[in-house]
Amino acid sequence: MTDPAANAELALLLEVAGTPKPGNVDRHRDLANLRFEHFLAGAVGARPGLDLAAGGAPVGEAFETAVEGMSRQSGGNTQFGCLLLLVPLVKAAAAGDLSPDGVAAVRDATTVEDAAGFYRAFEHADVAVADPPQGMDALDVRCGVDAVPVLRDRDLTLADVLARSEGDANAREWREGFPRTFRAAESMLADDGPMADRAARAFLDLLAGSEDTLVRVQHGPEVAREVRERAAGIESTAEAEAWADELVERGVNPGTTADLTAAALFVALERGAEV
Amino acid sequence: MTDPAANAELALLLEVAGTPKPGNVDRHRDLANLRFEHFLAGAVGARPGLDLAAGGAPVGEAFETAVEGMSRQSGGNTQFGCLLLLVPLVKAAAAGDLSPDGVAAVRDATTVEDAAGFYRAFEHADVAVADPPQGMDALDVRCGVDAVPVLRDRDLTLADVLARSEGDANAREWREGFPRTFRAAESMLADDGPMADRAARAFLDLLAGSEDTLVRVQHGPEVAREVRERAAGIESTAEAEAWADELVERGVNPGTTADLTAAALFVALERGAEV
Repeated sequence: MTDPAANAELALLLEVAGTPKPGNVDRHRDLANLRFEHFLAGAVGARPGLDLAAGGAPVGEAFETAVEGMSRQSGGNTQFGCLLLLVPLVKAAAAGDLSPDGVAAVRDATTVEDAAGFYRAFEHADVAVADPPQGMDALDVRCGVDAVPVLRDRDLTLADVLARSEGDANAREWREGFPRTFRAAESMLADDGPMADRAARAFLDLLAGSEDTLVRVQHGPEVAREVRERAAGIESTAEAEAWADELVERGVNPGTTADLTAAALFVALERGAEV
Repeated sequence: MTDPAANAELALLLEVAGTPKPGNVDRHRDLANLRFEHFLAGAVGARPGLDLAAGGAPVGEAFETAVEGMSRQSGGNTQFGCLLLLVPLVKAAAAGDLSPDGVAAVRDATTVEDAAGFYRAFEHADVAVADPPQGMDALDVRCGVDAVPVLRDRDLTLADVLARSEGDANAREWREGFPRTFRAAESMLADDGPMADRAARAFLDLLAGSEDTLVRVQHGPEVAREVRERAAGIESTAEAEAWADELVERGVNPGTTADLTAAALFVALERGAEV
């Protein structure tokens, strides 16, 4: 009998351990003010929220609790995006259907209160996000708790909010039933060797497969395209190592791809991958 | 409000992340069949047992549960010794007295059932131990559950058993009220920089301070003395790094000193050290 909350926490830890993951904190690299140990503390801190999700609590409550706990370390935002993917996956696993349909059912059952929990979570962490789409200013996630009355007025569930988050790779997973997550999990299961190494390889595949949201938000579409193309051309671990050093140096951090990697690790662990 | 179980799990993670810790798995080094990710999984797996300890369960039950969970990874024994120190410390913290007296009170309250849990824990992990003292053959920990009737016959508590474990540094902490653990925790609190770096420095100090039990069991007293003396002579991180490579190469693994480091990290976190 597996415990989905424990596997989710382990997925967070294996994700950050996987190396090289170009541009991200990994077992061999820290960023300037964001260190490996901040991710360790973030993963442990997220556990009570993950336990809530595994116990059947609403997505919004579980997510806000996870983010609040994650944030009790001095590095800032470590795993906000990972948790946005993991919470519905943990709920689907706990309900006995960890599949695209199962997680779509979790999504479709979300309420306005779940959306409120999502917005409140932004109060606990400094998350880099794009400007909201036209007409959505009052629902800019950077408004945090101030957006909650607007959610209630417009009767928007968390699924509604994420359906409107165009261009965000994590919101896209929510909308589409986590296709990239499940595909990457199957690649990891078909791969061999230590799980953290499989995670690093899956990270590069995901990065080659589509542009990283965080890179686009922080550096613009041209850098996002360049990073994707470069990832697609990597042919050896040595090349990946050199590129990892280069991206850290340039401050280019494909963090959304790391979120997807953590989500895929969780699915792989639930489907029998062993450390 | 801190959660002692969460801090104990984080202590396990920070301990293995700390580098260089000569001879041990650390952020930059794996051993042949014992990898960094086995320690991540071991820490997550130990959590239910640590939660039991924080909730006031008996030491033996909490310890056996922690070891059983820790062992659900393919690397073998990762944190048996750490957990033997952490469980009574977590209980003392949860009871509001994380001090030499507080942990001595936990020790003095142990029962024959706690001793039985300790012996049963050896069924879950392959732990390297010395031969038992004369007249103690029937209580060799390697007997595991078979020793339990003997414990009952002789009415031996866990404190009694550990009082008879001569030459074991972890048992000595139990006997003496964890003096090295609390001293190393105070050094970490007085130190500065990232906690994993403080842990690596504390590890070297502890190793210079007394011979490592696991090194003596596996390689004999001369190697244990050599390692202690060498640790005392280390004067720079560069020297420590080179020595770390050398010890991994030789298969000399000061694992008991890592146990003490994890215990000290827990005390430091409970006393306000922040990641």
